[in-house]
Amino acid sequence: MKTARVAYAGALHDAQPHQRGLQLADGRVLAESDVVWLPPFEVGTVIALGLNYADHVKELSKELTVTAKDEPLVFFKGPGALLGHRGMTRRPKDVSFMHYECELAVVIGAPVRNVKAAEAMAHVAGYTVCNDYAFRDYLENWYRPNLRVKNRDGATVLGPWFVDAADVPDPHDLTLRTLVNGQVTQQGHTSNMVNDIPSLIEYLSSFMTLQPGDVILTGTPDGVVNVNVGDEVITEIDGLGRLVNTIVGDEPFGR
Amino acid sequence: MKTARVAYAGALHDAQPHQRGLQLADGRVLAESDVVWLPPFEVGTVIALGLNYADHVKELSKELTVTAKDEPLVFFKGPGALLGHRGMTRRPKDVSFMHYECELAVVIGAPVRNVKAAEAMAHVAGYTVCNDYAFRDYLENWYRPNLRVKNRDGATVLGPWFVDAADVPDPHDLTLRTLVNGQVTQQGHTSNMVNDIPSLIEYLSSFMTLQPGDVILTGTPDGVVNVNVGDEVITEIDGLGRLVNTIVGDEPFGR
Repeated sequence: MKTARVAYAGALHDAQPHQRGLQLADGRVLAESDVVWLPPFEVGTVIALGLNYADHVKELSKELTVTAKDEPLVFFKGPGALLGHRGMTRRPKDVSFMHYECELAVVIGAPVRNVKAAEAMAHVAGYTVCNDYAFRDYLENWYRPNLRVKNRDGATVLGPWFVDAADVPDPHDLTLRTLVNGQVTQQGHTSNMVNDIPSLIEYLSSFMTLQPGDVILTGTPDGVVNVNVGDEVITEIDGLGRLVNTIVGDEPFGR
Repeated sequence: MKTARVAYAGALHDAQPHQRGLQLADGRVLAESDVVWLPPFEVGTVIALGLNYADHVKELSKELTVTAKDEPLVFFKGPGALLGHRGMTRRPKDVSFMHYECELAVVIGAPVRNVKAAEAMAHVAGYTVCNDYAFRDYLENWYRPNLRVKNRDGATVLGPWFVDAADVPDPHDLTLRTLVNGQVTQQGHTSNMVNDIPSLIEYLSSFMTLQPGDVILTGTPDGVVNVNVGDEVITEIDGLGRLVNTIVGDEPFGR
């Protein structure tokens, strides 16, 4: 099953896909553009992965003095960074490198502490698509993605659908793809993660309790390019969904 | 004014200091040990500073290839890390370096975006004391305090009191101190921050909106030492409060 959370006519609604767009829980059918899309589940702590696809590491020309294989490169994102489907993300005036990142987002379904990889997948509730922008001008050291690189307001897009784990037979057999203004600029496959989902859950739960609604952004494959004001960026994962975002200027959103 | 949030007899209460311990909002006077102390305000996003006291940098024998003065070293903490006054923090079996860190915690009182340092202090609601443990065994690269170092469950202690900003004439004129089993092991002064509070608020608000309840942990001075199971660790800031924490073994809290 796929579900979304949307704002429409002054209220919040659960919704499901419909051939004409989406259907609210009360039965009304609407077009995608009729509603405001929120992240498709109640989001808890957001955990992101750096350099979790080997081809992307190569693309960034980084030397892995401590590799992501030795230990996952994990960091948090704050709630202000979150945005839904069809949202607009600001491109700061002073940057040269605003890179989209298409990522598989894994949503935790039950409290998890000290779980082994072999049992980890039982704690996954489902999946969604993430576009987790990076502002690489500020990446003065590859090994620490500081908050200016990875936590600008509205630069972590989630959606459109939360997809039940039961409907995803193998999350490591999914094709990821990004299109900028209709042209494919990034394509990858979740089989190429450096640390797979069970090992990430084992690692994280060894020192912190994961809670329902916590989400793991599992990293992006190669093919990141700069995007500019006016660009439409679609990140999609086959079988999960097609997440649309538009780049806007910083000015109207200033102080 | 100083306020706390405590659990007592099955309910949550606001409380104030009293010569015999604390007084609930309903007038009852209790001893400190009668209640469970929570973080003293509704905590939003927790932003922590790495290497924000020059003497502490020297103590860790780090070379600042990119210094904290060039750009504050900021990272987030997750909600599971939080703990209140008189709580117990686990010492993992497999570590050699569990270091307390006495820090001034700055609590934001109103949404802040793009504020300049000169106006920043108007957005501070108040202060509390933080003991933000670090597990340095896992610090394989000084420049990225990964989650295993700085985000174990219950290893970021806040309290006991939230102190109104109006009652703290100069937050850069405060003495910090840590006592392990009654012996002073760390002492410093908030005048020695590399990045002071107004500059931190200007920096953070330049790319993310700070919200009421968000808290900035402003770093620790030198004098961190390893603590062991059974140790009582008191972090205190003159005029703000005396935060007590006890180190326990990991076993009873396992899976």
